Amino acid sequence: MTTEDAPNPLENVAGNGLLDRRLFLSKTFLSATTLAIIGSSADARAQRPTEPWMTKPGAPFTNYGVPSPHAAGIVRWVSANPDLPGNGVAWTPLQDLDGIITPSGLHFERHHNGVPQIDPARHDLLIDGLVDRPLKFTLDALLRYPRESRILVIECGGNSNAGWNSRPAESPAGYFHGLASCSEWTGIPLRLLFAEAGVKPSARWAIAEGADAFGMTISLPLSKLLDDCLLAVMQNGEPLRPEQGYPLRLVVPGWEGVTQVKWLRTLWLTDRPVMARNETAEYTELQSDGKARMFTFVMEAKSLITTPSAGMHLTTRGYYQISGLAWSGRGKISRVEVSADGGKTWADAELNEPVLPRAFTRFRVPWQWQGQSAILQSRATDESGYRQPTRAALIAERGRHGYFHYNAIVSWEVATDGKVRHVYVDAAPEAGAGPSDPLDRAWN
Amino acid sequence: MTTEDAPNPLENVAGNGLLDRRLFLSKTFLSATTLAIIGSSADARAQRPTEPWMTKPGAPFTNYGVPSPHAAGIVRWVSANPDLPGNGVAWTPLQDLDGIITPSGLHFERHHNGVPQIDPARHDLLIDGLVDRPLKFTLDALLRYPRESRILVIECGGNSNAGWNSRPAESPAGYFHGLASCSEWTGIPLRLLFAEAGVKPSARWAIAEGADAFGMTISLPLSKLLDDCLLAVMQNGEPLRPEQGYPLRLVVPGWEGVTQVKWLRTLWLTDRPVMARNETAEYTELQSDGKARMFTFVMEAKSLITTPSAGMHLTTRGYYQISGLAWSGRGKISRVEVSADGGKTWADAELNEPVLPRAFTRFRVPWQWQGQSAILQSRATDESGYRQPTRAALIAERGRHGYFHYNAIVSWEVATDGKVRHVYVDAAPEAGAGPSDPLDRAWN
Repeated sequence: MTTEDAPNPLENVAGNGLLDRRLFLSKTFLSATTLAIIGSSADARAQRPTEPWMTKPGAPFTNYGVPSPHAAGIVRWVSANPDLPGNGVAWTPLQDLDGIITPSGLHFERHHNGVPQIDPARHDLLIDGLVDRPLKFTLDALLRYPRESRILVIECGGNSNAGWNSRPAESPAGYFHGLASCSEWTGIPLRLLFAEAGVKPSARWAIAEGADAFGMTISLPLSKLLDDCLLAVMQNGEPLRPEQGYPLRLVVPGWEGVTQVKWLRTLWLTDRPVMARNETAEYTELQSDGKARMFTFVMEAKSLITTPSAGMHLTTRGYYQISGLAWSGRGKISRVEVSADGGKTWADAELNEPVLPRAFTRFRVPWQWQGQSAILQSRATDESGYRQPTRAALIAERGRHGYFHYNAIVSWEVATDGKVRHVYVDAAPEAGAGPSDPLDRAWN
Repeated sequence: MTTEDAPNPLENVAGNGLLDRRLFLSKTFLSATTLAIIGSSADARAQRPTEPWMTKPGAPFTNYGVPSPHAAGIVRWVSANPDLPGNGVAWTPLQDLDGIITPSGLHFERHHNGVPQIDPARHDLLIDGLVDRPLKFTLDALLRYPRESRILVIECGGNSNAGWNSRPAESPAGYFHGLASCSEWTGIPLRLLFAEAGVKPSARWAIAEGADAFGMTISLPLSKLLDDCLLAVMQNGEPLRPEQGYPLRLVVPGWEGVTQVKWLRTLWLTDRPVMARNETAEYTELQSDGKARMFTFVMEAKSLITTPSAGMHLTTRGYYQISGLAWSGRGKISRVEVSADGGKTWADAELNEPVLPRAFTRFRVPWQWQGQSAILQSRATDESGYRQPTRAALIAERGRHGYFHYNAIVSWEVATDGKVRHVYVDAAPEAGAGPSDPLDRAWN
């Protein structure tokens, strides 16, 4: 260390090996524990083999690139309902990714009746109901309208719902929490289209309908649509992918995924919600007091460590970078803390810039693992002051009948042999727990 | 307008129809010029046809998504040298994209001898030369090191060089300026790896070598590598694509693309540059005073309007959103101005957040086109105070022998029939101009 207030690389800032996040800025962070092979002579370069790709011209240019064949294992994991064609989910492999952008090819999918193959020339958007002028927009017309771009998470309301189960699911992190993905969405502010139609004073809700065979129908408060919602036409720079709603989808910043209607065809303004099948049979939760949670739109703050995570294996001792994702439907993430001792002590993680509202925030913290057992956790706090709850606190609040909006702290246990698995550490009441297989509930 | 200081939608803020950027925030921006079809009855919904995709289950889930077949025309345009296998470029279709993220499949390519198909198990990185300990890192070892993510432009030093030509190139914007793309890059800060090797006091430069058959070799000042460079392993969340350097590439924020060596295999520390073929025969420019420009690493501020742009056609009169990209190798974009009268008057464009250093910044400004002829331009200013020059000023400074680092203001002429073409508007000396076909120079 060159300055007196620089962090000491050997000093823990929290229990069980967590180190000062500022170590990433130092120049000597790793010098004691190199993972490199140390050469013995200055002519190491001459001794290296000449590989075949160094002597023959490589592959030609391509019009549209694809991943390396060596990354072929990094895919969405499909969990479809065999009894209902096109009903299911495909999970983003969060455990294999880094940064905050989810490549569009790996953005999670959740469909009720498959991906409609829409001819854009035959698709239009109707705005009708409590408006002065019903309007119908062709796609060509919509492409003339002003646009905005925003980097935003979309998260399914049912994401992570295996957490309600009585036993911890041992799937990889993405196949448990990966119904959340983050893209740059570009679209037309809905307020502009509503202004053209002229919203009648009695209008309070908009009923959004998709053009898929399921006929997805969702009631949304008009105030939200007028505030910050987009009629998205582009994702990560290019036109929407078919499974993300091509040619048009609603983007509803911070709200559960089901509201962000894909293949959008109609916005019908009303004075009340329509109480569609999705809003009563699903996305509604009966509570233990007999009341039901409905229209629980906002996705609360959440985080998880993606590296290391369940199913991984630490093969050598030494420094690790613990890395993960945090996000909140209420705005920016203000703080992420990481614990290596199951929540007894916490260290502040570094938040990788940019930290954007309602987007993934990548956090990182250095950790020294000397072969001890450890329980790794992260907890996020957002700019509203809300802090991600423990599993026990979430269950105490919501009961054991929860299904949606599971956002409790996630615990990964590192065993002395380096194997990582999912554990529950809270003293939560497990009696009378729900189904034991999380995956059979994943597509509801 | 509901408040007194709101912009007047009919009042120009600069000549030839440019409107106040704050109009995007208003609710009545478009109400006078709707492009929608206005319905005549409240039962418009019932009259709409039922399309086949609304009645049959759609396509199944996929492990890795691809673009819609209706976006099949949005591709990299390959411009390869027929005499040198794998030598050429593939351009990002900037005119078809929006936002700031370039999808990895459309990130520009520039190779000298094709894309090596590297087996990651047989690839390593050697750090040697003026170091205390030569180090060789396997990919597995590198994946253990701390990472950072940053959203950054990479721009080829030869991008836009058709601008030096005596006649304005009539290619689409991306096939003229699209050797620039913006991704989220994730990698290991090089300073950590150099600290492990121990940099000798005499080291001033690092010679970076790629594992491609061309054997790309580049000299880089060590100070830059220690400051902010990454050894990238991920792009837009997933492992690097083969054509972007899989498994390892240098990312050198703000510097010309050739420095950002793909398929990186060696970093050799020295006290002087190596004067490799790329640094003498190419990427060096003889000036009219007999001096040569060399090691002109930083890409200066630049911008262009992507919509509308050359080859497009305005089919109806009314409001348009002029949209484009600005970036600077010196930091953040602080201002983008747009002119519709060939540079006589300028309006401030809205900068779409986030505005990040050395990344694309998307700018937008409303424009009313009533069928008049217009010359659209944008000019960027960065946080260093540097302002993008006119073409005349660039040529006055650099002469007519320029080849690299062309960053002059771009002019698109909108004719009264709505057709858009590339024009030169400056009184630049055109005598003795360079080759007339820009594309035959594009791959140098």
